[in-house]
Amino acid sequence: MNDVISLAHGSGGRAMQRLLDELFLPAFADPELQMREDQARISLDTLALQGDRLAFTTDSYVIDPLFFPGGDIGTLAVCGTANDLAVSGATPGYLSCGFILEEGLPLADLERVVRSMAAVAHQAGIRIVTGDTKVVQRGAADKLFINTAGIGVIPRRLEWSAQHIQPDDRILVSGTLGDHGATILNLREKLGMSLDLTSDCAVLTDLIAPLRQIAGVHALRDATRGGVNAILHEFAAASRLGISISECLLPIKPAVRGICELLGLEALNFANEGNLVLVVSEQAEQAVLAALRSHPLGRDAATIGRVTGRGDVRLEGAYGVGRLLDLPYAEPLPRIC
Amino acid sequence: MNDVISLAHGSGGRAMQRLLDELFLPAFADPELQMREDQARISLDTLALQGDRLAFTTDSYVIDPLFFPGGDIGTLAVCGTANDLAVSGATPGYLSCGFILEEGLPLADLERVVRSMAAVAHQAGIRIVTGDTKVVQRGAADKLFINTAGIGVIPRRLEWSAQHIQPDDRILVSGTLGDHGATILNLREKLGMSLDLTSDCAVLTDLIAPLRQIAGVHALRDATRGGVNAILHEFAAASRLGISISECLLPIKPAVRGICELLGLEALNFANEGNLVLVVSEQAEQAVLAALRSHPLGRDAATIGRVTGRGDVRLEGAYGVGRLLDLPYAEPLPRIC
Repeated sequence: MNDVISLAHGSGGRAMQRLLDELFLPAFADPELQMREDQARISLDTLALQGDRLAFTTDSYVIDPLFFPGGDIGTLAVCGTANDLAVSGATPGYLSCGFILEEGLPLADLERVVRSMAAVAHQAGIRIVTGDTKVVQRGAADKLFINTAGIGVIPRRLEWSAQHIQPDDRILVSGTLGDHGATILNLREKLGMSLDLTSDCAVLTDLIAPLRQIAGVHALRDATRGGVNAILHEFAAASRLGISISECLLPIKPAVRGICELLGLEALNFANEGNLVLVVSEQAEQAVLAALRSHPLGRDAATIGRVTGRGDVRLEGAYGVGRLLDLPYAEPLPRIC
Repeated sequence: MNDVISLAHGSGGRAMQRLLDELFLPAFADPELQMREDQARISLDTLALQGDRLAFTTDSYVIDPLFFPGGDIGTLAVCGTANDLAVSGATPGYLSCGFILEEGLPLADLERVVRSMAAVAHQAGIRIVTGDTKVVQRGAADKLFINTAGIGVIPRRLEWSAQHIQPDDRILVSGTLGDHGATILNLREKLGMSLDLTSDCAVLTDLIAPLRQIAGVHALRDATRGGVNAILHEFAAASRLGISISECLLPIKPAVRGICELLGLEALNFANEGNLVLVVSEQAEQAVLAALRSHPLGRDAATIGRVTGRGDVRLEGAYGVGRLLDLPYAEPLPRIC
């Protein structure tokens, strides 16, 4: 195998077969992939054992740089799509995986990414069952893009949706704000601000699973690009209600707070890759907080605000001075995920 | 809306919401998309009415140029993934759709592509139910890449697979060889060879459906990059049998033959985007040919060879002189699909 990706690796010819045989098939090690059909085949009876609705989602990953503290584009591609399933209450079960590779990409980089994907998928009990590889000429893509689509099954009678948000519901987050965004910004802009910045990139299935047993959980989303702020605006728009957040309740790591103050940015707008925003009834609040905090990924879980009658998103300051929290026109940082 | 794509359109902020509201949601017009959850939700009971196995597949589309006679990257992204489902016998039902856009892409181009996708999906009864958009800075991608993943359901007791290929089975194709590849080559290399070259890009569900009733259909694939030749090699490898093709039986349009002769290329290696390669029993051959030819997309269907005991792929010439048909190391044309 050559040490860089060439156009031949995306050709449907022998070079591509070799990439399949020597890298993708052994790394992902799934019987459906080994069948080498054009599609994976999954028993509906097996799926029906877990629930009554299929959850189906997709995301493309274009992050720059490919590797960062806490993960790489491969871990992101598994975690991000798994989490978009898990927030519906589904157990993520199967992923597809489409690579777009730039001619000249070091094979070692691709191998590292593929092994990351395989490791995080294996750990989360997710099977990578079907895939595709395209190669474009030098300059037609930036190194490596990944698309994953995922399917999972939502348990019967579980109805988590932004449609179910009620006035006086509590807004919770499962972790500190903006760790992923601050990590990438620090790396990319060579701020060299702090050594302890790490992306929060993680599969949240296990953190979410115990919440299925708690009545009063209304809606979950994972905060990715656009940060927690984007999710709050999505919740407000979908429910036609308002949201009030208390600035002093926001869990933010000192290093992230430092970057935000230095650059005049808002941690609420920074991307996470392993942080839930939850809307739960007042009655469910303590049970949900306790469940989240009992898991290592939820130890910093906190209530940050509540749902109000008015149709806007407000941030209340430490001295009771509130202001409207706008959804920015653009995020501070492109290619964050 | 600005007239070109900016980084803000991929940000998770207001610019992205507007692209969703003004382009994607109205064009794809699906209730699951309108819900604006992070995942589509599909009833397993509804799926189980159609069969017992989910088919799941993905492809990324990076074709250059975006628009070509017979389609564009959007039609390709729907047809290609739908066909990868349909060749399992499944009815393609749902697609995800991930866009990677280059900053500066004319919005009119994106709109045209999105409308093509919506039209071909609507016509084929396929719902686009979940999606994602990323924007990368100018020069980090070439205009527009699309990934689609698809799911469909395989009817009970239908077991089409390369594993079921038997010696003496017949090899059929549903149409002329290499129309898509020759069209793109003609366009890109400005050969100006012929005015009647058109991509065969089409959803093949309706062409395939009647075959489910015919006993002795063993395996189907659609020939895309790598052409019919790549499929023959896949079939030979999966079945550990050989394949013998007769040169004089290959249906090839005069314009495609002309390009091949001019450039010294082999139509068998040229991509199709709406052409099946089928392996059927000797007994089923005439029924399958009749079924294919009764559909407009299968009018040029032909038997091109048969399965042999020996483990190679051979091309028999007009005078009985045979030669090994190699799988090329690379395809003649990158970015063909």
